[in-house]
Amino acid sequence: MKPFLVLLILLVTAAESASIPHVRRFLGHFAGSRLRNNAGAALNAAQYETRFFRQRLDHFSFAELPDFNQRYLVGNTAGLWSPPAPIFFYCGNEGDIEWFSENTGFVWEIAPSFSALVVFAEVFSSPLLIKEEAYKDAKSLSYLTTEQAIADFATLITDLKRNMSAEDSPVVLFGGSYGGMLAAWMRLKYPHIAIGALASSAPILQFENISPPESFYDIVSSDFKRESMNCFDVIKNSWDVLEAQGKYGDGLISLSGKFRLCKDLNNTEQLSDWLDSAYSYLAMVDYPYASSFLMPLPANPIKEVCKKIDDFPDGTDILDRVFAGVSIYYNYTGSVDCFDLEDDPHGMSGWDWQACTEMVMPLSSRKESSMFPPYEFDYPAFADECIQSYGVRPRPTWVTTEFGGHDISTVLKKFGSNIIFSNGLLDPWSGGGVLQNISHSIIALVTKLGAHHIDLRSSTTDDPKWLVELRETEIKLIKGWINDYYQDKAFTAYSIIPLFI
Amino acid sequence: MKPFLVLLILLVTAAESASIPHVRRFLGHFAGSRLRNNAGAALNAAQYETRFFRQRLDHFSFAELPDFNQRYLVGNTAGLWSPPAPIFFYCGNEGDIEWFSENTGFVWEIAPSFSALVVFAEVFSSPLLIKEEAYKDAKSLSYLTTEQAIADFATLITDLKRNMSAEDSPVVLFGGSYGGMLAAWMRLKYPHIAIGALASSAPILQFENISPPESFYDIVSSDFKRESMNCFDVIKNSWDVLEAQGKYGDGLISLSGKFRLCKDLNNTEQLSDWLDSAYSYLAMVDYPYASSFLMPLPANPIKEVCKKIDDFPDGTDILDRVFAGVSIYYNYTGSVDCFDLEDDPHGMSGWDWQACTEMVMPLSSRKESSMFPPYEFDYPAFADECIQSYGVRPRPTWVTTEFGGHDISTVLKKFGSNIIFSNGLLDPWSGGGVLQNISHSIIALVTKLGAHHIDLRSSTTDDPKWLVELRETEIKLIKGWINDYYQDKAFTAYSIIPLFI
Repeated sequence: MKPFLVLLILLVTAAESASIPHVRRFLGHFAGSRLRNNAGAALNAAQYETRFFRQRLDHFSFAELPDFNQRYLVGNTAGLWSPPAPIFFYCGNEGDIEWFSENTGFVWEIAPSFSALVVFAEVFSSPLLIKEEAYKDAKSLSYLTTEQAIADFATLITDLKRNMSAEDSPVVLFGGSYGGMLAAWMRLKYPHIAIGALASSAPILQFENISPPESFYDIVSSDFKRESMNCFDVIKNSWDVLEAQGKYGDGLISLSGKFRLCKDLNNTEQLSDWLDSAYSYLAMVDYPYASSFLMPLPANPIKEVCKKIDDFPDGTDILDRVFAGVSIYYNYTGSVDCFDLEDDPHGMSGWDWQACTEMVMPLSSRKESSMFPPYEFDYPAFADECIQSYGVRPRPTWVTTEFGGHDISTVLKKFGSNIIFSNGLLDPWSGGGVLQNISHSIIALVTKLGAHHIDLRSSTTDDPKWLVELRETEIKLIKGWINDYYQDKAFTAYSIIPLFI
Repeated sequence: MKPFLVLLILLVTAAESASIPHVRRFLGHFAGSRLRNNAGAALNAAQYETRFFRQRLDHFSFAELPDFNQRYLVGNTAGLWSPPAPIFFYCGNEGDIEWFSENTGFVWEIAPSFSALVVFAEVFSSPLLIKEEAYKDAKSLSYLTTEQAIADFATLITDLKRNMSAEDSPVVLFGGSYGGMLAAWMRLKYPHIAIGALASSAPILQFENISPPESFYDIVSSDFKRESMNCFDVIKNSWDVLEAQGKYGDGLISLSGKFRLCKDLNNTEQLSDWLDSAYSYLAMVDYPYASSFLMPLPANPIKEVCKKIDDFPDGTDILDRVFAGVSIYYNYTGSVDCFDLEDDPHGMSGWDWQACTEMVMPLSSRKESSMFPPYEFDYPAFADECIQSYGVRPRPTWVTTEFGGHDISTVLKKFGSNIIFSNGLLDPWSGGGVLQNISHSIIALVTKLGAHHIDLRSSTTDDPKWLVELRETEIKLIKGWINDYYQDKAFTAYSIIPLFI
């Protein structure tokens, strides 16, 4: 069994590559989901209706292009909604919107207390209706851009509201990870469509040189160091051992055996990518309760990984330790016979394309503070690889031209309103997030112990106090936006929303 | 000689058509320019350098498309500019940017007192570099959209600033008419690129049912009524006489003679279009001083037209009066031998295309208040005509989806900042403008006696006091934006700009 990487796969580079010197891809999981545990998940499935909306492939030209069907889910939780009660709109990441819905229990849970209609919209439902096919087709992929995604949402919301005579219903956007970036940017670009946005774990500053490119790996590393200095050191020292063993005689075969791989390795890079992914994902899903965000995992999984690594007697082979550690991630249930590295959907996923076009987020690994092999983001090599893989040249400065990011506090201090940027500092993506209040209504909520968009997940009985309080603050802020809106529209009957939570 | 209609030609409909029943096109001049008189015009020509910037045809996809060269003018007036002094950026309407520069003396005049660099950017320099050819090519025209134009500006500004090490220079946008819409929308969509916008005579609310569709013709009509009730009545009664005469025997030949046309009429509609245009343009350029905005005209041209019409003795043929009146517009210099109606650039101008795609601005003529023939905007017939002419179906609700407009005061009350909407109430486009303050920094400046973007024109010795004061207010507000910006950036050395004006 291998990690279920159907969703947002981030293409990052580090160290050396077999095919392209000094460039190595490895997968840093970006958003992802597929919650299969805990409260809330099963509960929601029956709450919505699945619908399709005919969208233009290109909103910004009149070129003759095919339309496509965008999938979206609509749920009138508890049947309480009628206009002008609010609409809660989740900005889907690309990927199966049902999984995102399952993983965003927060929205479903709070909707009834707002009498809100819930909509989850898929990004980039395939223009050809068969995603796998579409992703192989660079022509359709050409329109897989953030601007088109947000315009899809704007068009869908406008049409939905018109059809339901809900023009006066305020729309609140929600999103996590890439979906959080979409939510924040959509509030900025379409204030007439949505009155506010909760953008959870949205690294909108992880572009160009705005945030340090080292922050991602520094945070992953400090998540491990926090549990155990020894654990950090073991992992940090393992890369050289791995590489040395791979070079030696039948070292690759021996490594393949040690790591119980289904197929023998072609190079050590395959294995280090696999390890990299595990550590990075572990940092993202380092939740304080058992979860199945990407893989079935215990509570505080990094603590468990480090426990395994640390519990070996002195003198144990460093690679045995590392293998035992990542087995917590890849094989917590113990049901895996062998690990299939090629199961990794490296290929033409939507996110890979986006990383090679607009979403160029430089990540480096700094020798001093990172437990990963040192690497400096090498844009020319990255661009070459994109041209080779997709025949497309990245536009690395386009996101900041289109959406801003540089000096965001000056720009938005007197412009814009009603955005919550929530980040947990265990989350490696928090390094590219907005961590300080920008104005009285563009707010940063930062939790020291939060991982990747934990606030959007269904509540559990194991939720720590800070998480309960974080969600309460979010609800209070959202309530404020809605009340302000009703007041501005002089809908006095709606000026107070009963809050049952 | 005929009106010089190279620029923004608005496609509007009224009354009946020969080819399509109940639909008639006539040309309402939208922005236009070509100032050839008065102070300032000649003065500016030598101030700038003409440059070209390589632009993507489509910013919002990665489809393989040709680039094009966007023309822009750069002037460092008096050599005072160096970063981080401001950049004044004029959002060109489509059309020759040199003419827009000539007609926007205000920007050139105030730049030195701000030590500002001046940039005038052309919209839609032909993708094929030969505009006439490009406009015949629906494929290139497909990308002639407002969103692409604004993204062109954003890209150009970002690149310019980077190349001049002027990242810290604040950018202030200017625009009149369609250019004013671009300026306002660009400030809303790209707050990180520009700190504020002066949008003069920008009818951003002339979409769907936001502003009454009758306002344009009502304002033209009241501009005439204001000068003389008789003048208004003569024009209002002339249409039936015209149509009746056209129907009678060799009526079209007789009308062609009476109106000194170079070629005989095919139908009366041609003639009424020609008259319509004259009245509409007269209302737009009803300046208090002699000007040559579209045609050489005396000060207060509508007063002069009405004087002609009124001065005839009782019993004079109504069409003789009307002809004498519009001759003020079409032949003020007296140099025209015959009038060539077909000289009108009806055809594939950029604006015609835009009116048939995004810029669907419904205009009607109300029997009670308008001196024009009654007409109700008929969207289905309009759409049919667009399909027939361009093979394109309009998207009449797209502008409000993309840029908003409905309930603008609620939407922008707590969102956005630093926009001046200036309108003169003589200008027929003011009916679709923002005429009330939205917030403390989204300001409406309304002058009772102003015509189409008079504030952006070069100052003259004949400027009335209200115009001088309007410009002073604009300068003061812009100065405030710039000072706020420097303060936020803590550029204390730049926190006070000397104002020499």
